[in-house]
Amino acid sequence: TNIFDPTEHPHRRFNPLTDEWVLVSPHRAIRPWQGQIESIEQICRPSYDESCYLCPGNTRINGEVNNQYNSTYVFQNDFAALKTDTPKISSNDPLFKFSVEQGESRVICFSPDHSKTLPQLSQNEISAIIKTWIQQYQALGKTYCSVQIFENKGAMMGCSNPHPHGQIWAQQQIPTLIAKKQRGQQKYFHDYQQPLLLDYAIKEAKAAERTVVENDDWLVVVPYWAAWPFETIVLPKFNVQRMVDLTLTQQTSLADILKQITIRYDNLFNCSFPYSMGWHGAPFDDKPHPEWQLHASFLPPLLRSSTVRKFMVGYEMMAEAQRDLTPEQAVEKLRNTSSVHYLEDV
Amino acid sequence: TNIFDPTEHPHRRFNPLTDEWVLVSPHRAIRPWQGQIESIEQICRPSYDESCYLCPGNTRINGEVNNQYNSTYVFQNDFAALKTDTPKISSNDPLFKFSVEQGESRVICFSPDHSKTLPQLSQNEISAIIKTWIQQYQALGKTYCSVQIFENKGAMMGCSNPHPHGQIWAQQQIPTLIAKKQRGQQKYFHDYQQPLLLDYAIKEAKAAERTVVENDDWLVVVPYWAAWPFETIVLPKFNVQRMVDLTLTQQTSLADILKQITIRYDNLFNCSFPYSMGWHGAPFDDKPHPEWQLHASFLPPLLRSSTVRKFMVGYEMMAEAQRDLTPEQAVEKLRNTSSVHYLEDV
Ligand SMILES: O=P(O)(O)O[C@H]1O[C@H](CO)[C@@H](O)[C@H](O)[C@H]1O
Ligand SMILES: O=P(O)(O)O[C@H]1O[C@H](CO)[C@@H](O)[C@H](O)[C@H]1O
Repeated sequence: TNIFDPTEHPHRRFNPLTDEWVLVSPHRAIRPWQGQIESIEQICRPSYDESCYLCPGNTRINGEVNNQYNSTYVFQNDFAALKTDTPKISSNDPLFKFSVEQGESRVICFSPDHSKTLPQLSQNEISAIIKTWIQQYQALGKTYCSVQIFENKGAMMGCSNPHPHGQIWAQQQIPTLIAKKQRGQQKYFHDYQQPLLLDYAIKEAKAAERTVVENDDWLVVVPYWAAWPFETIVLPKFNVQRMVDLTLTQQTSLADILKQITIRYDNLFNCSFPYSMGWHGAPFDDKPHPEWQLHASFLPPLLRSSTVRKFMVGYEMMAEAQRDLTPEQAVEKLRNTSSVHYLEDV
Repeated sequence: TNIFDPTEHPHRRFNPLTDEWVLVSPHRAIRPWQGQIESIEQICRPSYDESCYLCPGNTRINGEVNNQYNSTYVFQNDFAALKTDTPKISSNDPLFKFSVEQGESRVICFSPDHSKTLPQLSQNEISAIIKTWIQQYQALGKTYCSVQIFENKGAMMGCSNPHPHGQIWAQQQIPTLIAKKQRGQQKYFHDYQQPLLLDYAIKEAKAAERTVVENDDWLVVVPYWAAWPFETIVLPKFNVQRMVDLTLTQQTSLADILKQITIRYDNLFNCSFPYSMGWHGAPFDDKPHPEWQLHASFLPPLLRSSTVRKFMVGYEMMAEAQRDLTPEQAVEKLRNTSSVHYLEDV
């Protein structure tokens, strides 16, 4: 038949935030996998590990000693990718253009407990992380235009320490992806006088076709243009440009939704689900940004099981992102998981 | 001191092809690595493997039997990401934009010998691959605007079969990255009336600062804006828009340069060096493309050794590509390798 079936017919979907397309090839998921199998990470870890450089009271590689912290804990990254004291130099040669960058990199321990990950923390403990993020935005936003908060979770995602932690890289220039997202949102705001992601959240909430979890303030969907198999976006249902502008209630409901989505992730393949997660909001550049909506993205690598990942290589590196199941099929699988964490469900 | 030192000061470099920046943080390479260690792949493979679905005479998963080929061999991908018979449908909704795609995916075996990779093939054998690529461009270019030739090498790069092979994905729409590169080249051609990559090749050949290998017709450099640690770009020293326009001499010198660069790669960490490689040239859209230069990119994941890779995660996924050594430092290491393959150097 010649009727379009998204689960049958290869098609491309457009990401209006980044002005990029994704090739959806739903038939690829059935091919047998003879490729690389990832090793499963150990699930049972002690609450305190004396060899962990993030645990309370331990000495780090540079000789500094961590506080005996009992909530969150922030310190400067010992191997910072950004520095405060670089000379301000740049060149505009069209083929050899560069610009020295100034900035800071920090580490945020999410909890003193070495063994816990986000979905295993209580809602109050997650609220403390959100509070810390807000404090960091406030402090670093005074000096830096861009404050990037993110978490790499799992060895598969280049994380070298299982102690629950995230990072902040703050800098004076706006990084490539944030600049792209700003252009995408500006264009939409210019055309429709509404923030792109607020309109999008309203339409997704109504359609309910790609919603994984939801509460009064927040919505988590597999975006229509998702590139990674189980990619999600965390969207506020109200207009807000930066995390620092969230009310206390909205912070609490955010803690709830973060717990909900990370529980679903762990339950999908009964493993500590690896991902990179990060927050995007309006830059701290003292300009009005009616186009911006605060949001978070989860970009998880797994495709079929806890040991078989999606490789974004070859065609994906040379042409465009390609996915092996539709976003709607991914939602279906995430929704069919329990709302109780698999390790507690005994 | 306040004098800019690219090996000391974090800075950003601009990729004029893609309109994207890369953060260069040269100090990061010294941090100790406690993260994921990749397994080394077996080096000695038999010339023929009866369980390999790419070896001559073997039966593939769909029941088809491979020819008893003795040079290159091309067939339709058994799990094609693109199909010829999809309905032509699209939607222009700004938030839910899609377009059905038509295309074909093919596999190219580079050699009947299961055990050989590109650097281990003779120059004549590599010339046969180039001839096959040209034939495929000619055939598929009649129907499809974009013909993407690429190779995924190594399990780390999602390659599920070590038999030397590449792929071709042909389609009617121009994929995201090729569209970006076209815009970058158009802009430069508009401003300077010269192809960007020809001007760039001339300047790099003269400076000789980032050149890894070179012959009369071709130049391989770690681009000024390289994102992956040992990324290289293969550049013609003459004006040419598509591979189908290469003279016989230029095809032969291309075979030579491909052998040279892949030998250097294997010798860097004494392993079969994983990478994604792909070709970009002017699309087959019957329009003039004076801005385009044919070129290939090698995007290898390794950073420190045959088992420690660069993870493009976290900051890289959420903000922009980041590298841990300068392109000039990478060139130095590649140049210091032997021009004789480590397995032959006995
Ligand atoms: O087609 P293959 O080799 O099975 O699959 C590999 O290459 C494809 C195209 O680059 C990717 O989409 C896959 O993720 C990768 O595993
Ligand atoms: O800083 P870490 O955790 O040692 O390193 C990890 O996160 C960084 C920021 O996303 C990446 O650049 C590294 O490739 C990754 O291994």
